[in-house]
Amino acid sequence: MNKFLSWWESLCTGSGALRFVDINLRGIGQVMFQDNPLTGALFLAAIAWGSYAGGVPQVALCGVLAVVVATLTAQWLRVDQASLRAGLYGYNGVLVGLALATFIAPGPLLWAYVVLGAAVSVVATLGTANAVKPFGVAALTFPFVLVTWLLLLATYGFAGLAGTMLPAENVIPPFELVAATRVSAGDFVQGVLHSISQVFLKGSGVAALLLLAGLAVNSLAAAAFALGGAILAVVAAHLLGAESELVTAGLLGFSPVLTAVALGSVFHKPGVRVAAYAALGTVFTVVAQAALNVALTPLAIPALTAPFVLVSWLFLLPKQCFGDAPGDQPGA
Amino acid sequence: MNKFLSWWESLCTGSGALRFVDINLRGIGQVMFQDNPLTGALFLAAIAWGSYAGGVPQVALCGVLAVVVATLTAQWLRVDQASLRAGLYGYNGVLVGLALATFIAPGPLLWAYVVLGAAVSVVATLGTANAVKPFGVAALTFPFVLVTWLLLLATYGFAGLAGTMLPAENVIPPFELVAATRVSAGDFVQGVLHSISQVFLKGSGVAALLLLAGLAVNSLAAAAFALGGAILAVVAAHLLGAESELVTAGLLGFSPVLTAVALGSVFHKPGVRVAAYAALGTVFTVVAQAALNVALTPLAIPALTAPFVLVSWLFLLPKQCFGDAPGDQPGA
Amino acid sequence: MNKFLSWWESLCTGSGALRFVDINLRGIGQVMFQDNPLTGALFLAAIAWGSYAGGVPQVALCGVLAVVVATLTAQWLRVDQASLRAGLYGYNGVLVGLALATFIAPGPLLWAYVVLGAAVSVVATLGTANAVKPFGVAALTFPFVLVTWLLLLATYGFAGLAGTMLPAENVIPPFELVAATRVSAGDFVQGVLHSISQVFLKGSGVAALLLLAGLAVNSLAAAAFALGGAILAVVAAHLLGAESELVTAGLLGFSPVLTAVALGSVFHKPGVRVAAYAALGTVFTVVAQAALNVALTPLAIPALTAPFVLVSWLFLLPKQCFGDAPGDQPGA
Repeated sequence: MNKFLSWWESLCTGSGALRFVDINLRGIGQVMFQDNPLTGALFLAAIAWGSYAGGVPQVALCGVLAVVVATLTAQWLRVDQASLRAGLYGYNGVLVGLALATFIAPGPLLWAYVVLGAAVSVVATLGTANAVKPFGVAALTFPFVLVTWLLLLATYGFAGLAGTMLPAENVIPPFELVAATRVSAGDFVQGVLHSISQVFLKGSGVAALLLLAGLAVNSLAAAAFALGGAILAVVAAHLLGAESELVTAGLLGFSPVLTAVALGSVFHKPGVRVAAYAALGTVFTVVAQAALNVALTPLAIPALTAPFVLVSWLFLLPKQCFGDAPGDQPGA
Repeated sequence: MNKFLSWWESLCTGSGALRFVDINLRGIGQVMFQDNPLTGALFLAAIAWGSYAGGVPQVALCGVLAVVVATLTAQWLRVDQASLRAGLYGYNGVLVGLALATFIAPGPLLWAYVVLGAAVSVVATLGTANAVKPFGVAALTFPFVLVTWLLLLATYGFAGLAGTMLPAENVIPPFELVAATRVSAGDFVQGVLHSISQVFLKGSGVAALLLLAGLAVNSLAAAAFALGGAILAVVAAHLLGAESELVTAGLLGFSPVLTAVALGSVFHKPGVRVAAYAALGTVFTVVAQAALNVALTPLAIPALTAPFVLVSWLFLLPKQCFGDAPGDQPGA
Repeated sequence: MNKFLSWWESLCTGSGALRFVDINLRGIGQVMFQDNPLTGALFLAAIAWGSYAGGVPQVALCGVLAVVVATLTAQWLRVDQASLRAGLYGYNGVLVGLALATFIAPGPLLWAYVVLGAAVSVVATLGTANAVKPFGVAALTFPFVLVTWLLLLATYGFAGLAGTMLPAENVIPPFELVAATRVSAGDFVQGVLHSISQVFLKGSGVAALLLLAGLAVNSLAAAAFALGGAILAVVAAHLLGAESELVTAGLLGFSPVLTAVALGSVFHKPGVRVAAYAALGTVFTVVAQAALNVALTPLAIPALTAPFVLVSWLFLLPKQCFGDAPGDQPGA
């Protein structure tokens, strides 16, 4: 693996075009905190497969367009080279592109919207990074959430853009208390896998396995915490009586997966106390996900990864020291 | 009084169990900024009486469970000993427990929810304290508000937990402009007393008197500002034409009471200019309470003490110097 | 011009009353970042004309009352003299007064509300300035937005105050997707001019020309960015398919105008790269305006200049250096 990466790095050193590809792949990898072009390539494969299998190939294309625009914008803004090369200005862009193409109907203005959103995501990343620096936490996916929320909300006021998956005709649906039902083993496994693939807004077991592989090639701990976080999230959601359909679609689990990876393997050195702390954060992210689903109902926009950002900031701000050095990954 | 406290302190020094009790009592006292176990005991009596008289004894039990869980969590997280002993990791926990038991129907999951909320309240307290430290203000009850809002919102998505006092069946009630009516002297006195007892989510005159006694044993100024703040809040609410029933139940006054105590006696040395500043803040907290009641209507969650946190932060951030040293209470 | 200003300054030095007038005029000028009493006088003329022509003379009177109360409050709070004299404690107050009188029906409580709001706006300005100082950005009109939102929301709970322009009877209107229509040249010009005058909550071409004149006497660049920002905002809003009536009334353009002036001429030295950056921010402010219009629909309050504050903070936080020194205007 390391040999392959060394060989790739030597190729990039000699070619501006390959370096550009490398930066964009790392940007995709940073969605789950991994600064590794191979991870990015496997994540890209997961996105491509999930989009193709879901019958929405334009989603993958918008994701790629967005990460490229984000990288170009970052270069135009002359950002810090080391952070740029680590992909830290790309991960919010790729998520903006995926989310816009997922929730807005295809059309010429969608592409313009993706370009606008990807460009602004870089400014938002720079701004958020500066805003949270005094508190010793990372920007996480807050720039993605903020920019995408604004762009999605605005579609309700723009005739040129119409939501496909946004409940535009019925902004405030009547509230119904959900009833819990029995869960089969197949539903359980699907809930776990989709909790992982929904990090990239995909409900696909194959995509989930590609994502786990992408994590594993760079960090076995990250893969373990992603899987463990998904299992814990699905169990907690069922115990609390969440709607089974929602859990099985992975829609209560993707934010907890990110929390588990962040708290367990990225910003703390893995260990027993760290795992307990990460587990508390993961369970509370399930609560926060359900809470934001309710809170955003009147606005008819999805929670995206806001529950992850909120809970991870809450659990990182104490700068808890677990008898080990904090992780040195400054990433997503 | 001092003699009694010295004797109690000497007992605590010799006994880990009594020290644990002492920490939890101080935690209850810190809800109104008082680092004093006797104050905490009187506050606990107020909670117990209010719960018993209201026919909801489980509320007091959940409050006690929550403060104990919060203290244990703080010990597990190895927090700063001085702050722990001053009760600064307990006041958000006890409020979380009281609020969850007040708004959610009794059942096994309620107790699990209280334990989860109390544990997370400590992380939120540590995180908020670090987040606001650069600005020179205290965490106040923001951790309580944040954690409780998320837990209450999430109940709408969890079949295992059902709100008793939350308007779950009708999340967005039709808006009605309220009409002001004449107020009797009895209603006025009740509005003032309940404004104080609603700090602990209780509508009880006896509880209010116990709370005033608890404040007085530690700080006569705090008791005076609590009573003065309650009177000012009730007068202002009536002049602005607020719904009489709401005012008389103390539901527009509990946040202003906290603002008055905080701005008038805790974070500034009492004086004429300070009293005027605190009065402006207290009146504006009435406005903020009415505003948040409206703003949270679509979400069907209570404002809790958010108006107090918002206005007090606004009035503390200027670090106004009134010709006197700022209070040295780092408390709630 | 400079001669006139020197003569005026010499008059102010000799007279406390004229100095007081000078401070208040500068306060009005600072709404668009101009520390110049002549600019303030022209802005005041625009307010007066717009209020008179609109048949709402009390709006201008409330604006004047508010800026005077704000200045007196600032003096009582013994704020920094240099900032006070530059009008930095007045611009939020005048906007609070204009907004309250625009959205609330006339009556004795309106005046009390204006005095309360103007006084609190100074505390909020001091607090916000301290809160954003570590991040190297200015308070902008955040204090105005926060205080006015709370006061307007609270009117729904107070029978003594009734909204005239607030949709009180129908807090949550049924959502309708807007349809774009063809735009005439006359509508286009009106949209551009009203985008400028709506900064002061006025839909008036004469007021817009007075405002442009007021900007030009102090800064030609500011006038150019205001006009350019208005044109760009109207074009972008039409391309995105926004409701024509809204665009022509200037209601999607006033926040982008402020963003253009702030990013293009106040906080950066004008230039090609700066203009491109400001243009990106201006277009995104159109999106943010549409987004906040939707987001605030359930609350039935106007977005005010919140989109400007949000996007400008986002674009200022990166502290982008465009090969030139940052502007030295610490203003609004």
